[in-house]
Amino acid sequence: MDVSVLERDFHLAQEAVAHQGDTVRSLKAAAKDGNADRAAVDEAIEKLRNVKLDMERKRKAFEDTTGKTSSSNKEAFRAAMLNALERRLFFIPSFKIYGAVAGFYDYGPPGCAMKQNVTQTWRNHFILEENMLEVECPAVTPEIVLKASGHVERFTDFMVTDVKTGDCHRADHLLEAALEACIEDAKSTPEAVHAARDLLARVGELGAAKLGAALTQYGVKSPDTKNDISPPFPFNLMFKTSIGPRGDMVGYLRPETAQGIFVNFRDLLYYNGSKLPFAAAQIGNSYRNEISPRAGLLRVREFTQAEIEHFCNPQDKSHPKFKSVADVQPLLYSRALQMGNEKKPKRFPLGQAVSEGIIANETLAYFIGRTYLFAQRIGLNPDRVRFRQHLQHEMAHYAEDCWDFEVECSYGWVECAGLADRSAFDLNAHSSMSKVELAAYERFPEPREEDVLSILPNKKELGKLYKKDAKAIADALEAMSECDALEMQGKLAAGQSAALKVDGGVFEMQPGFVEIRQQRKKLSGRNFTPAVIEPSFGIGRILYCVFEHCFYTREGDDQRTVFRFTPLTAPVKCTVFPLLQRAELNERAEAMSAALTRERLSNTVDTTGTSIGKRYARTDEIGVPFAITVDYQSVEDSTATLRERDSTAQVRVPLAELPALVRRLTDMELSWDEVAAKYPAQAPASDE
Amino acid sequence: MDVSVLERDFHLAQEAVAHQGDTVRSLKAAAKDGNADRAAVDEAIEKLRNVKLDMERKRKAFEDTTGKTSSSNKEAFRAAMLNALERRLFFIPSFKIYGAVAGFYDYGPPGCAMKQNVTQTWRNHFILEENMLEVECPAVTPEIVLKASGHVERFTDFMVTDVKTGDCHRADHLLEAALEACIEDAKSTPEAVHAARDLLARVGELGAAKLGAALTQYGVKSPDTKNDISPPFPFNLMFKTSIGPRGDMVGYLRPETAQGIFVNFRDLLYYNGSKLPFAAAQIGNSYRNEISPRAGLLRVREFTQAEIEHFCNPQDKSHPKFKSVADVQPLLYSRALQMGNEKKPKRFPLGQAVSEGIIANETLAYFIGRTYLFAQRIGLNPDRVRFRQHLQHEMAHYAEDCWDFEVECSYGWVECAGLADRSAFDLNAHSSMSKVELAAYERFPEPREEDVLSILPNKKELGKLYKKDAKAIADALEAMSECDALEMQGKLAAGQSAALKVDGGVFEMQPGFVEIRQQRKKLSGRNFTPAVIEPSFGIGRILYCVFEHCFYTREGDDQRTVFRFTPLTAPVKCTVFPLLQRAELNERAEAMSAALTRERLSNTVDTTGTSIGKRYARTDEIGVPFAITVDYQSVEDSTATLRERDSTAQVRVPLAELPALVRRLTDMELSWDEVAAKYPAQAPASDE
Repeated sequence: MDVSVLERDFHLAQEAVAHQGDTVRSLKAAAKDGNADRAAVDEAIEKLRNVKLDMERKRKAFEDTTGKTSSSNKEAFRAAMLNALERRLFFIPSFKIYGAVAGFYDYGPPGCAMKQNVTQTWRNHFILEENMLEVECPAVTPEIVLKASGHVERFTDFMVTDVKTGDCHRADHLLEAALEACIEDAKSTPEAVHAARDLLARVGELGAAKLGAALTQYGVKSPDTKNDISPPFPFNLMFKTSIGPRGDMVGYLRPETAQGIFVNFRDLLYYNGSKLPFAAAQIGNSYRNEISPRAGLLRVREFTQAEIEHFCNPQDKSHPKFKSVADVQPLLYSRALQMGNEKKPKRFPLGQAVSEGIIANETLAYFIGRTYLFAQRIGLNPDRVRFRQHLQHEMAHYAEDCWDFEVECSYGWVECAGLADRSAFDLNAHSSMSKVELAAYERFPEPREEDVLSILPNKKELGKLYKKDAKAIADALEAMSECDALEMQGKLAAGQSAALKVDGGVFEMQPGFVEIRQQRKKLSGRNFTPAVIEPSFGIGRILYCVFEHCFYTREGDDQRTVFRFTPLTAPVKCTVFPLLQRAELNERAEAMSAALTRERLSNTVDTTGTSIGKRYARTDEIGVPFAITVDYQSVEDSTATLRERDSTAQVRVPLAELPALVRRLTDMELSWDEVAAKYPAQAPASDE
Repeated sequence: MDVSVLERDFHLAQEAVAHQGDTVRSLKAAAKDGNADRAAVDEAIEKLRNVKLDMERKRKAFEDTTGKTSSSNKEAFRAAMLNALERRLFFIPSFKIYGAVAGFYDYGPPGCAMKQNVTQTWRNHFILEENMLEVECPAVTPEIVLKASGHVERFTDFMVTDVKTGDCHRADHLLEAALEACIEDAKSTPEAVHAARDLLARVGELGAAKLGAALTQYGVKSPDTKNDISPPFPFNLMFKTSIGPRGDMVGYLRPETAQGIFVNFRDLLYYNGSKLPFAAAQIGNSYRNEISPRAGLLRVREFTQAEIEHFCNPQDKSHPKFKSVADVQPLLYSRALQMGNEKKPKRFPLGQAVSEGIIANETLAYFIGRTYLFAQRIGLNPDRVRFRQHLQHEMAHYAEDCWDFEVECSYGWVECAGLADRSAFDLNAHSSMSKVELAAYERFPEPREEDVLSILPNKKELGKLYKKDAKAIADALEAMSECDALEMQGKLAAGQSAALKVDGGVFEMQPGFVEIRQQRKKLSGRNFTPAVIEPSFGIGRILYCVFEHCFYTREGDDQRTVFRFTPLTAPVKCTVFPLLQRAELNERAEAMSAALTRERLSNTVDTTGTSIGKRYARTDEIGVPFAITVDYQSVEDSTATLRERDSTAQVRVPLAELPALVRRLTDMELSWDEVAAKYPAQAPASDE
């Protein structure tokens, strides 16, 4: 088709949008004086949304033929989906009437319901199934906890500011944009493109200096104003506050829920009968004061995390239930595959992945398997989820192995969970900061004889000589490392004195001040710091990906949008329609709704006069899997039609059987095919 | 019994505690060097807890006979319960290993599970049942929202500081303590006692000046140091933070969840098909930076709220489902009863309470009824809950009627929910701050003819004369109140000029600048701001009261503590015991546990060798309602015993029937009596 025609269509559509926009404004004004029906306004708004959608389609058609196909495809898809989500109030920009605040979103009724369904499914799938110890800790956290975890020092992004306006930007984002531009620029030399590609892969690893140099090299300016930008500097992403009235106790909103579990390790171990392994979990909100949040629902400043800390003996990371997932075959994108030529993930049975050493241990692999099963349960497309192993340089120094659970959506592959073997890092950090031992006890099969160095300061002597310093000296002696102690023992044995550092000062130890000797001791067991394996989920991101994987438009009518949510995650399980607005039908509809509610099935009754087809379309838009229609036959033989969303197929079922039937369909104990086989089919309404 | 004996017993018990404390410390030290079994340490800790409990009982006995009966009774009860709660990790002081922070508590595994059960019951009871629109909004809130709501200006407590140490205290708390001391002081004159009583009732209403005067009059000092205190000054209880990297956007942690609903009113009304009435709800955390949190779990700085905003036409506050609660008879403590002589609440059928005008309207009464039913469902004692009406001076000026849902516990009557008719206050506040109309539209049965004043500025003329000011002037003219406009109309008609204030300046309007006249207009409807009825629940407080109402000790053995949680709220639904540690029993126990998990029943298996009686006692301590014991007969005839917590009665049930049976018992579809009638009774284990 001729591009100029497509371009004209697109511009006409743009005008239509502008025109309808005016209509809405004037109607609103009229409504203010009570001269226009609010319903009329809503209708106009509705129409505005549709012409906008039409414009998006025309832009797509135009852009596709002019080359920008794939990316604009994705954007059109996303635009259509976001339109459906926002129109039906799955989410709302927070504080909208005050102009909204970037990085904050509210969940409206259907979004809220789905978030709970996903969270509850997570809780049943992980916590209940594994008998995990769930805790709930406050978001407000005193500084010392986050100093121990390293967040106060290291939880930062590099920021640059517009030297004129002071606008803030993420340095890495600006550089990435510049590099992509260079790569796409036809005028770039092959060498330049190669260099840019190479740097693009390493942006995340650059320190302040190198990042600054690169920004200068590529002449990066402030995006909107084109002003110069400052050199990059680290900005801490934690929201800061103050606890208590004195204003002298710094607190932060937790950047992750995990720390609450670590600080409770001691009590949790006791609760578990002092036995390892065990897992603790927390579901709650975390906070990151993003510099310039983009990517809509994917990068928000307040978000719900679901984190698991599995504590085990570092010498034994086997998992009792590993067999149950050994044959599960998720797409694994191992280090080797990422470095290889194909750069494609591959399906592996997890048993094989462990035996071949692709995944470090059974426990990590077990959680990868459970995560994969969870993804399917909530309706993610198993061909569009993968587990990507961190490359060596991506991992923290203490981590043994890390895998990201990534889901493909219109933004590309998005990290929705991270599964990491963090060794004993976190417990050691809190133990040394709090001076509280965070360890487990292992009883030896039988007691062992071991040489233990004993250091016995002669406190009487020291006391006489050093008075108030005596205790500090004795402590310092007892705290000596083995080799320091042996060295001192040597000198003293040779009748020499030996210097001992105590805080600031130095004291000369003489023979007789301290007795140092190897002692044979019988040990019945040992204390050790458990290793931690941490699966950490971002519920909001997972939910967003569910939206994308479930969104589609009806064959031949891309105005009719549908969400193919699984019955488990669907925000509303069933709608009830009286075919027409008649008292006897409405009564039966209300009665059916009440019966569904008694079955704990969220449902709505739509008694509006609009055509049954329109009403079905409305429920398709929010992904309601089932619809019950009460018609005249219901009055005669107490049956009603039950309609399934995706097939739009209908069967006729006795009213009395419907609530239990829908309950079992929703719990996924019963498939639609089984229902269709059991009950007589019903021809869909004329306008379906 | 001789007081001196009781006193001696008490002091001996105190010594026992001190002694056992030392034992624990030394064992811990030994454990550090790997020379003591952690289990041994735990055992010692366990013993320490018991001697502490024993000491509490002895103190109680001693204090009772020495007169301080009731109050110390309550304190002993609370001490015993808190001991049980903390020992079994229902809650943990947050950041415990760092010395904890006042006003913050973690929920440990059983507490966490119960909180979810109570919250989920609330959601089913209110949101699902009423088809409410649930939303979830961020806790971080920009300042403008809380300026509109009045929190920035008025959400304060009066604080005094210790002039030497700077310690902070709540002024009202200090005054109350002083007044109570005066009332109890034998040396106080009747007049003084009367005056103190009178003031005590009004402490909450005092302003800074009167509060300061009273503190001086009663010579109040800083509690711990006895230093002088500063005059009282208001301290804002909101946690303050900053949104975004620039540091120029003030934000607060929300002090309540309600505001998130109000700012979304417009979209929610649209979602509801522009129809009233409808209710929206939000469950989430709120934050109050208390000055000096006391009363443990009752006054915390981070807590979960469940709030409902029911929007309706101010002229029609009837409720469609009111009939369903008209005969419910909660204890009502109306204004009249509070002012009367008896000062006792009274049971009223809610229908009568509305018809007699005791409760302002049906909707408010409906929610009172629903709240009462909810309280019973989660296991609160219906004789220890009441609804107390606010006295006139307790209510905000805009409120039409307010009732507090109060629960009696060891702290006295505690407010666990507030039910208020807030008129249109909140929506008006946000509407005027955001300049966004937050109104509903009401279509008249038939159009009405009404005189409407029309103001038509002569923009052409104004433009010529006033250039850039013209628009502001035109706007000011259109914004004139009816009487101002009529006044101006009069002057201009008489050929005079009329002054018009525009922001700062004043302009002289001449005839012809503006046309003002009464116009007959046909109005098809009107816009109005809906009234709001707000039931607001504190989940944590409700949970705490459930703990108190459910806690008891076994007849004749007050070492054996029990929580009589309803199966619905119980943290764990069932425990499974193999009678002895034998492989064939353990296998069957594990299989039963797996079957219960498939039924989504949280359960634990206890394979420790300890006696069955001890193991039952352990589950009683966390209120597990049911226990299944697999014994040798199980191996022969595939049955097991099922034990009910409170009666400790046991029946023998086929293994295959148990999971479904426990499921129905837990959902409270089946009572224990029915089960006991159906299955053969089983003699309890010898040591039960």
